Amino acid sequence: MSEPIFPQISAGLMKTRSLYNQLKTETKKNLGTGSVSTLFQAIFLESIAYLDRTAQVPITSKVEGKTYFLFSSGKKTSRAVNADLYLSDPTSLNPFFMAMQSNDWEALSAEEITQQAYTLAMAFITSVDLQKTGDVKTPGTFFELLCGHLVTLLLGVQPKKRIPVLNLDQTATLPTDFIFDLGENRPKFHVPIKTSTRERVIQVWAHQRVLDGIYGLERFKGTLICLSEVKKNAATHVVTEICLPTQWKVYQSFIARMHRVYYFDLPSKYEALNRQIPRITVLPFGSLFKEVERLSAGE
Amino acid sequence: MSEPIFPQISAGLMKTRSLYNQLKTETKKNLGTGSVSTLFQAIFLESIAYLDRTAQVPITSKVEGKTYFLFSSGKKTSRAVNADLYLSDPTSLNPFFMAMQSNDWEALSAEEITQQAYTLAMAFITSVDLQKTGDVKTPGTFFELLCGHLVTLLLGVQPKKRIPVLNLDQTATLPTDFIFDLGENRPKFHVPIKTSTRERVIQVWAHQRVLDGIYGLERFKGTLICLSEVKKNAATHVVTEICLPTQWKVYQSFIARMHRVYYFDLPSKYEALNRQIPRITVLPFGSLFKEVERLSAGE
Repeated sequence: MSEPIFPQISAGLMKTRSLYNQLKTETKKNLGTGSVSTLFQAIFLESIAYLDRTAQVPITSKVEGKTYFLFSSGKKTSRAVNADLYLSDPTSLNPFFMAMQSNDWEALSAEEITQQAYTLAMAFITSVDLQKTGDVKTPGTFFELLCGHLVTLLLGVQPKKRIPVLNLDQTATLPTDFIFDLGENRPKFHVPIKTSTRERVIQVWAHQRVLDGIYGLERFKGTLICLSEVKKNAATHVVTEICLPTQWKVYQSFIARMHRVYYFDLPSKYEALNRQIPRITVLPFGSLFKEVERLSAGE
Repeated sequence: MSEPIFPQISAGLMKTRSLYNQLKTETKKNLGTGSVSTLFQAIFLESIAYLDRTAQVPITSKVEGKTYFLFSSGKKTSRAVNADLYLSDPTSLNPFFMAMQSNDWEALSAEEITQQAYTLAMAFITSVDLQKTGDVKTPGTFFELLCGHLVTLLLGVQPKKRIPVLNLDQTATLPTDFIFDLGENRPKFHVPIKTSTRERVIQVWAHQRVLDGIYGLERFKGTLICLSEVKKNAATHVVTEICLPTQWKVYQSFIARMHRVYYFDLPSKYEALNRQIPRITVLPFGSLFKEVERLSAGE
């Protein structure tokens, strides 16, 4: 890691990093506690205090109907941020933090949840982009913990990350994405969480296929959560969206069935899959909060 | 790319790079010609001329029964090289180059083919390691072209890299790994080629599953070719082998059936799968040359 240029920024980043480490420790014990919610709020406040000292630069977007900007500090630039989803006024997130503490999301619309969750995720992630070039692990882990925390609140059970995979004369367990088990006669959820998918998305369908194969069809509802599919060209800063809808249709037809896909920044090419065959239900992230009861009942 | 330290090395590397670019152009037209064989030979000779000016450094191996070294030049080091497979005398590869030109492999044993092919692959790949830090694309492409060329010679047909995947009212083609189609009533081969697999290996089984789903079981023989699974610790240079045999068994049980896996540097944990259930046939690369006739007949 290179030396920070301004001591005051350094102090803020150090604090953010130390809160992030606390978050990793805390979530290992319990993903669904109020103290985890509080840590997300603290990390957000530190991140925006840091971003306040950076510049917001509009960039060229080749994504139809979407506008993007990036944060810039010295020679470093962050990934692209969706201007319609990112809330510049940090107090806009107060309803989200209140809902997180009470685990009561009634007062927020699906759109408001998507925007506020997007802002919460991107404030920290863009700070990391500016701080440490090429660090993809920290944003990925942070995003997984954020979504994991929210889904744990919504479903009311702790996830597992390892399941038994062989049987009869063989025993073994495999590491998995989050598995939320609501118990007898209720659905179990297989929840992979990715900041972006590209050609790696086949893994999601393949893991679902393994679960279907071992435990039977419809035992696990495949529920993918993604941040975004936009890519900023490193040299020109032009933003494009990389989508592979034909691949998705092939995987949904021939590997396994994903029950839901939720996006923080939903690509229109994937939104269109809601009206095609094979049907893939792809929704903005906030919709999860509005349909989670029906999903938990097995719909 | 940083400036080369010695002009004479630079000239050699420039030549290797220009031959490699020629190889890429030539193989796009036809993967199975004698001119491609000649280019591989020329690249090998340039690579070893370069490696002759570097040092061979023994390194600590935690892989049972296997000894590794690395090439070192200035501050740069190559990936780990298997000391029993790599032939230090370049004239040892003359039988291989002769066999490649005549497409007659009778005179060589499976073990000799494995060693000579390993040496051919590693001479160029380690040169690239020393030249350009973090370049994984060039070694991957080179290895794919080398294996693609050899399999094209063995099967006598040009591979495709795109196949139709949807039907009825939908049409689409997908990019794939090499597909070798021997025609009516003879097998087709699905040949993914990887320098190493790790957790990405699930893609191989998932692609096989897509082919099985679209075209029916047993239409495509899944045939994976890999270089090695060893990993050199960047700081300590200690070599380990990263194997996930339980995952492989789960994928072979619940996603699809791979017919063969061939390794240039075969890990013993994968070799053991030949004697376990589900059966996965994992062999040294040279064995392919000895059983290709039986495989082509549909065995």
